[in-house]
Amino acid sequence: MLRTHTCGELRLDHVGQTVTLTGWVQRTRDAGGISWIVLRDRYGLTQLVLEEGVESAEVREQARQLGREFVLSVTGKVAERYSKNDKMPTGDIEIRVAKLDVLNPAKLPPFLIEDETDGGDDLRMKYRYLDLRRNPVRQNLMLRHKMAQAVRRYLDGQEFIEVETPVLIKSTPEGARDFVVPSRMNPGEFYALPQSPQTFKQLLMVSGFDRYFQIVKCFRDEDLRADRQPEFTQIDCEMAFVEQEDILNTFEGLVQYLFQEVKGVDIGTLPRMTYADAMRQYGNDKPDTRFDMRFVELSDVVQGQGFPVFDAAELVVGINAITCAHYTRKQLDELTDFVKKPQVGATGLVYARVDSDGNVKSSVDKFYSQQELQKWSVALGANPGDLLLLLAGPADKTRKALSELRLEMGQRLGLRDKNSFSPLWVVDFPLLEYLEEEGRYFAMHHPFTSPKPEDMALLDNPDTIGQVRANAYDMVINGVEVGGGSIRIHDRAVQARMFSLLGFSDEEAQAQFGFLLDAFEYGAPPHGGLAFGFDRLCSLFGGADSIRDFIAFPKNNSGRDVMIDSPSQISAAQLKELSIETKVAEKK
Amino acid sequence: MLRTHTCGELRLDHVGQTVTLTGWVQRTRDAGGISWIVLRDRYGLTQLVLEEGVESAEVREQARQLGREFVLSVTGKVAERYSKNDKMPTGDIEIRVAKLDVLNPAKLPPFLIEDETDGGDDLRMKYRYLDLRRNPVRQNLMLRHKMAQAVRRYLDGQEFIEVETPVLIKSTPEGARDFVVPSRMNPGEFYALPQSPQTFKQLLMVSGFDRYFQIVKCFRDEDLRADRQPEFTQIDCEMAFVEQEDILNTFEGLVQYLFQEVKGVDIGTLPRMTYADAMRQYGNDKPDTRFDMRFVELSDVVQGQGFPVFDAAELVVGINAITCAHYTRKQLDELTDFVKKPQVGATGLVYARVDSDGNVKSSVDKFYSQQELQKWSVALGANPGDLLLLLAGPADKTRKALSELRLEMGQRLGLRDKNSFSPLWVVDFPLLEYLEEEGRYFAMHHPFTSPKPEDMALLDNPDTIGQVRANAYDMVINGVEVGGGSIRIHDRAVQARMFSLLGFSDEEAQAQFGFLLDAFEYGAPPHGGLAFGFDRLCSLFGGADSIRDFIAFPKNNSGRDVMIDSPSQISAAQLKELSIETKVAEKK
Repeated sequence: MLRTHTCGELRLDHVGQTVTLTGWVQRTRDAGGISWIVLRDRYGLTQLVLEEGVESAEVREQARQLGREFVLSVTGKVAERYSKNDKMPTGDIEIRVAKLDVLNPAKLPPFLIEDETDGGDDLRMKYRYLDLRRNPVRQNLMLRHKMAQAVRRYLDGQEFIEVETPVLIKSTPEGARDFVVPSRMNPGEFYALPQSPQTFKQLLMVSGFDRYFQIVKCFRDEDLRADRQPEFTQIDCEMAFVEQEDILNTFEGLVQYLFQEVKGVDIGTLPRMTYADAMRQYGNDKPDTRFDMRFVELSDVVQGQGFPVFDAAELVVGINAITCAHYTRKQLDELTDFVKKPQVGATGLVYARVDSDGNVKSSVDKFYSQQELQKWSVALGANPGDLLLLLAGPADKTRKALSELRLEMGQRLGLRDKNSFSPLWVVDFPLLEYLEEEGRYFAMHHPFTSPKPEDMALLDNPDTIGQVRANAYDMVINGVEVGGGSIRIHDRAVQARMFSLLGFSDEEAQAQFGFLLDAFEYGAPPHGGLAFGFDRLCSLFGGADSIRDFIAFPKNNSGRDVMIDSPSQISAAQLKELSIETKVAEKK
Repeated sequence: MLRTHTCGELRLDHVGQTVTLTGWVQRTRDAGGISWIVLRDRYGLTQLVLEEGVESAEVREQARQLGREFVLSVTGKVAERYSKNDKMPTGDIEIRVAKLDVLNPAKLPPFLIEDETDGGDDLRMKYRYLDLRRNPVRQNLMLRHKMAQAVRRYLDGQEFIEVETPVLIKSTPEGARDFVVPSRMNPGEFYALPQSPQTFKQLLMVSGFDRYFQIVKCFRDEDLRADRQPEFTQIDCEMAFVEQEDILNTFEGLVQYLFQEVKGVDIGTLPRMTYADAMRQYGNDKPDTRFDMRFVELSDVVQGQGFPVFDAAELVVGINAITCAHYTRKQLDELTDFVKKPQVGATGLVYARVDSDGNVKSSVDKFYSQQELQKWSVALGANPGDLLLLLAGPADKTRKALSELRLEMGQRLGLRDKNSFSPLWVVDFPLLEYLEEEGRYFAMHHPFTSPKPEDMALLDNPDTIGQVRANAYDMVINGVEVGGGSIRIHDRAVQARMFSLLGFSDEEAQAQFGFLLDAFEYGAPPHGGLAFGFDRLCSLFGGADSIRDFIAFPKNNSGRDVMIDSPSQISAAQLKELSIETKVAEKK
């Protein structure tokens, strides 16, 4: 090694030793007769000192030539500092520089390599290799490493086997759009990159692998909303000879282990909530349960008093924003504007303050007597000082809007602390959802998910198909779906029926998934599994909103890597070899 | 869990307990009044027994309906066997079947699910999910899992951080052919799949990550020779502030650890051999050192005696096949035919037997006196009973041919035991090699490899460029290159010069690798690394020749996955969205 120690490890014990450190110049300070350099590497910071009459004139002259981010090798004696810095782990010592070599000079970086940088997003992405030098970004990736190793340790200990599934697979029409790869050796044909290893992990169960996992890259060619990446990483898992309960317990154990190992937090047992309850109580299949503020359905309480908006509504539903009765007119107008935003979608907001004497004053007082308003207060469990917020309209839409308002109020009340964690399982998802615009049913989880046996009969009646529940489950933490899965179909006939419900002809099903249908006839065991979104899980553990800074080299919202300038054109010779041509010129 | 125990864990201790097992019917045997079923899962085999008058008639009737590979759940009491089977870990017990449920029936598999199967390669690949049920194939993948976990444990312990680098990157002309991915959002542009994460891991060193690793899929669109796969897995590593010696020591440690953990073998310290010595002594940069049989150069000894073939040859070189003097004329003719095969490329073989009395009898006795032949014997260190094998011709070609003959003789002499391991480092590779057909130099390792500082001056003279050695190294085990790497260039000017030597214009270098050249100007530390071929390493540990059975779902030699039938055609709508069209029709 070009160094004897790292920049993070020297302490008073080392005083008097001659050491060699390597690293980057974090900053320099010259006070005339004495100057300091702070040297940085992955492991920490160490102060170097050069003093007139102590260190040589030659070395002091060298030090004057240094700029930020120069790469140095420095040899000298460890000395105790006169004024110690208890904010630096190495703050008790400094190095008296005897020898200084510039291993590589550096141009002035385009932004500050500090915890708080002056670089904008675009600049940071173009020079990602410099951005990665910043402490918070590096810490994120070290957290990710730590989590990946802990995941493997836990699953290995539970007899899971990590199996690599192929990246060059086959394009299938169901689900999101595939990235495809033209095959040179099979002209006119294409591989696809996997959206998940779903069918392969099921085949591994058919093969008797019993317990499989993989931390694996997956790919979706979707229009990128904020914080989506075309390539992302899953912790992908599958087990055979299990029921839903076994899977929930196993992966509850994984997440408990991760919180304990990585955050030192005991999250305890995960509560379970049905999809139906989640929608009714939170208007959301991934409820943020760090705070309560549950929905209370008020149609029975508020209808029939002559207020046309409520009377005409399919659903009137409210929340109690405790302690918010003091909200000003301006604040209440903000909330009204908030619920009317197109992405929230309500038509208006009704509110009612519970005064300190218990009187309720609402925005619709002309329709409601104090006696009626008291019923609201009771229904919502309100106390003096609370603010009641009510929305009305079509049930699904109104619940969705109130869910947004609830999250907004949670935010305003400081109830969504990034360092507090509230995980739960949401279970009993519907098997299918009907998309009006497509005029057919779609799999809510995916086409391989098993209906609940007790609901199988409901599949026979077109009117009840939508009520069939699946053995499907999501793990939700702080309002984020971090993982989800299901018990799978392992019977050819049931799988064929499922494809048929999803609009596949028998021929299409056989062409796309014949290998899986065939496999089910050669002794497929009952099985199920789940996948965690690893990028998201890391950002959650890191207390961040965005996944981007937990990915070493992310792409921007147009799917570009602006650092390497990709995607890019390829040569005519490459296109010819691949038996394809581009059609962009024609479009101009 | 649908079971209380696995099929591998029941022992005499369990006798009397009621257990439930799940698994596949391995075989059934009916001896009239008594019948047996052997049930299999990943963990082992357990015998089930059904006896007239003991087990119920109903269960016995059920058992008669079972076929191979049916999936069962069986409940019963553990009983001690009358005749124990000490070849089965569970051979002391059997299960008296009280209840039997068929979880899934199975069609008769197209080949036997046994250690030795009757299925040919094509059939096994089409039904890979059944092939994976066979014990040897599953054991290979479990070995792979064990190795991957051990690699991570070792490197994590050495402060390496696993960082995921992107899969959708940029196509570059140097090296093998890229797989490409059309970008829908950037019409006319393509991503490429990485042949290795080379530039990204170097950028991570520029970022100060200090020690990086990744077990990562890589891709090469090459015509597939036997045992090449379009997607393969590397253990990819990089370190900063190191010299070659540090890298060799670190990864020697990794391989020692793997052998110890996985095979229980202490491989000791790895010898080091220069590339020049490897070529001179073994004619091969990946010598199989499980056996000696080193080359002896004989030009000085054999030339000038009037044998035109030797006299005209650039090089005469031989090996001593000890104890082979007894080879028959037929065997010697076989060896002559062997060396004349086009892929070996010699024009003929000269041999000489050392008789029991020390007399040497050669195939060219009319040119050489016994006295001269004795010099051959001395030079090759031969003893009575040995066989001397000599080739002559152009130096490089002749060494290559003799290397093949040496390996063939090692094979015939049983010196290439798959359970013995002889690792070594080959070091000091040439930086560049001149390819006559291309009329230019190519990087022997890759364009980022650093010349040895002491050889830098040789780059200035066109006549000596080929002599420049690199800080590049390969780890070789049993004649297989399992890993290789180099100290990298970290200076922009040196890297630019390297690109220029490789025929890049400045513009091309900047367009393809500008981000790396730029990064070198912002404080790049000295760094280097290596990558192991993980599939190959696993097959070596597994004592196998082929990598295919260490990959769960491999592709065939045309790059096809015959199980899922991929690659395949995609829809016209997909092509249109991607702004490409296929040109296959025109070719017809």
